[in-house]
Formats: sequence, structure tokens, C-alpha cells
Amino acid sequence: MNPDDVSALVFDTFGTLVDWRSSLTVELAQFGAARGIRIDWEAFVDAWRAGYQPAMEPIRSGARGFTKLDVLHRETLDQLVKQFGVTGLCEADLDWLNRGWHRLKPWPDVVPGLTRLKRKYILSPLSNGNTALLLNMAKNAGMPWDTVLGSDTFRAYKPMPEAYLGMADLLGLPAARVMLVAAHNGDLAAARRAGLRTGFMPRPREYGPGQKIDFAATEAWDVIGTDLCDIAAKLGV
Amino acid sequence: MNPDDVSALVFDTFGTLVDWRSSLTVELAQFGAARGIRIDWEAFVDAWRAGYQPAMEPIRSGARGFTKLDVLHRETLDQLVKQFGVTGLCEADLDWLNRGWHRLKPWPDVVPGLTRLKRKYILSPLSNGNTALLLNMAKNAGMPWDTVLGSDTFRAYKPMPEAYLGMADLLGLPAARVMLVAAHNGDLAAARRAGLRTGFMPRPREYGPGQKIDFAATEAWDVIGTDLCDIAAKLGV
Repeated sequence: MNPDDVSALVFDTFGTLVDWRSSLTVELAQFGAARGIRIDWEAFVDAWRAGYQPAMEPIRSGARGFTKLDVLHRETLDQLVKQFGVTGLCEADLDWLNRGWHRLKPWPDVVPGLTRLKRKYILSPLSNGNTALLLNMAKNAGMPWDTVLGSDTFRAYKPMPEAYLGMADLLGLPAARVMLVAAHNGDLAAARRAGLRTGFMPRPREYGPGQKIDFAATEAWDVIGTDLCDIAAKLGV
Repeated sequence: MNPDDVSALVFDTFGTLVDWRSSLTVELAQFGAARGIRIDWEAFVDAWRAGYQPAMEPIRSGARGFTKLDVLHRETLDQLVKQFGVTGLCEADLDWLNRGWHRLKPWPDVVPGLTRLKRKYILSPLSNGNTALLLNMAKNAGMPWDTVLGSDTFRAYKPMPEAYLGMADLLGLPAARVMLVAAHNGDLAAARRAGLRTGFMPRPREYGPGQKIDFAATEAWDVIGTDLCDIAAKLGV
């Protein structure tokens, strides 16, 4: 692929750009220590993330109207608080915990990689996160987006084709001029089916010791790199 | 108003941030000179802009489904080309002319003003322009937005309340924590009715010698400045 064939790079976010597991585990363990709540916070975070795909399923199938990820995260949080026997949390605590997803930390190559890529390409996340979540994350972490278009702008959840095509429509570009960069082969396969270009880099520690897939590219994606700086180098930026 | 009461500043764009009249007149006159097309290009640009509000009316009233401003601009352009007797334009010419709205130049205080304000606030345009138009404009002019959310994300045209409230919803903020900055009193009045904060600065040359209104604030807006740098100073940034 010629790097000039693409005008915009869009990025999966959870796992690809930000280390949700470590970020949330550190925050929640500190919160628990300050409140004297002794549970396995790593297991709590893994359970929270495990609720992610099932929470979006009724929306993908049409059984439930579009609902922002902030709301889905909160519904799962409320269940887990009961399940783990956590007591004594006020509404402000729950809201602060839920906004932990707005405060996730990027992997170290992300801000320098995006900064390089921005010189040549239009950059936006293409995430299931809602706009406010992604925007607060970016402001907090200094991620230099050109725009932040969350799933509540095209009102669809990946891997629905409407998500990839909705992003291309908002960017005013044919799908083939947009490249999704992701650490997840499944996301890239859906993007390719929708007509987008694809870029892969692995995040082998995303799920901690329990990670089972996505250690390497499973298809011949248009660009394959070791991290975002390597992707930039391979695009000649 | 305490500047800390607001988290996000959103900006009217055409006229407030960019000088559409001079930008388009210069481009079109150069285009006409190169092609030997001798018409009054300033009158052409004024007629193009005069078609702006009428083109959105059927969408505001519900008679027509939401249609991007790029499409409305093109419909008006096609009419004016006939009306002014311009001949010999290919599809690529018409598309390039229509994208003149993506290449509008900012007033001189805009990039430094936004750069200052970005240190404290989340910044987005709140324009009737579609996302691609605003994004290409920003990339071209170096406008340092946190996000670019065009009217095709909330699918409503100002002064419909859905535009102001749709923006606050995407930002994840109560309307009262969002301030619209505009050079148009009517836009600010609609924003205030929707519950947003308001900031005014005049652009007395927006419509050239034909300008009739908006030389000064007509209500006690929350912040009133002479330009964007003055607005920044009044917000203590």
C-alpha cells in the first residue's frame, strides 16, 4: 500500500492506545486502600472488562436503542459492586469510579507516535467509547487528535459495519482512504470487510497473564508494526 | 460569571472564526482570472452566502431530512453558476469550488486565541458546517481543537435547540458548563435559551460594506470581548 492512498488514520482505543487493565487496577486499589475495602481489585477490573462485549450485544442486535458506553460501564459497575460485596459507596464514589475509563493511561509510544502521524494524516479515535470519555481521556493524557468522534456520533458499536462506515462518512472520505489501526485482529477484519485499510500492532500485555489472542497479525494487514512509532516509520512519517 | 463554572468553549465558525467573504472572493477571482471567466465574484460569493439560511430552512422545519452543509452549498453553487452565466466548468472544478468552504482563512486573533484557551478549556466548533468541512478547515489553518463535532454529529442546524443541547450531550456536560462564543447575537440568544453560557466578540467586517447588524452586543452576554485574545484575557487564561 502507498501511504499516500490514505488521508485519515483512526484508532481503536481500549487496549490499542491505553492500558485499561493497569490504569484501572492501580486506581481502584488506591481507592480501596484509602477506604479500607479489601477485595481483589485486579479480578474486579477483569470482571468489569468481561462485561463490556455482553453489554453492547443488545444494542448491536437492535434489542436495545443506542446507549452510551458510560451508561453500560456504570450498569456493569453497579452489578459488580454487589457481586464483590463492596458497601458504603456514595453516588459520587460510583461516578468517580466509572470515570476511571476517562482517565486511562496511554502506552508509552502513543503520544510520540500520534504526534508524528499527525503531520501527515487526519487522526481520530474509532472506539466504542463515547465522545466525552475519549475527549476527557485525550485531554488528560495529551493525545493530539485532530478530532474525537465517539461511538455516540455514528451511534453504532464495532464490529457493526455502521461504525466503520459512519466514521468514513463523518470524515468525508471514501472508506478506502481511512485506515483503522488496532491491536485486535477481529476489529481489523471487520474494518477490512467495510472497505477500510488496516494497520496492526500487538499489545501482548493488554489482558495481563491471561491474554490468549492477538499476539501477532493473523492476516496480511496493510501495515504491521511493533508499536505506533514503528507504524509511523512504515508509513514514511 | 466565574470562569471555572465552564468546562468547554464551543465556537460559531463562519464569520466568528473565519473570514468567509474575503477568503472565497480571493480564491474565486483567481480561479476566474485563470479561466478567463469575467463576472463579479464578490457578488457571486455574497449570493452564495445569501443562500445559506434558506437552504437549511426545510431541514429545520422537518420538510427535508438532515442533509450535510457540503450538499447544501453545492446545490446553491449549481444554481448560481447558471444564474451568473458561468460555463465550461467540469465536475472537478465544481467540487473544488465547493470545497472553498473547507479552506476558509481564520481572522488573525483566532489561532493564538484558541491556543491560549485550550490550556484551560475543552474546545470544539459549534457550527452548521459538517465535520469534514470543519476538520479540513482546521487542519489547513492550524486551529488547535480538542475535537471537531460538526452538525452531522448531532444532526440539527442552529438555532434549533437540538444543536446546542446535542453538543452538550456529546461533550458529556450540563448545558450550563458549555459556553458558545459567537459574533452573532441571534446565535447567542438561542444558545442562552437552551441553557448555555455565552461569549460575544464583534466581527464588523464579516459582510463587508453591506454589514447591518452585530456591530455590538445586544444583550448582557456572560463575556464580551473585542476579539478572541480579549475573550481569553477576560476568562483569566
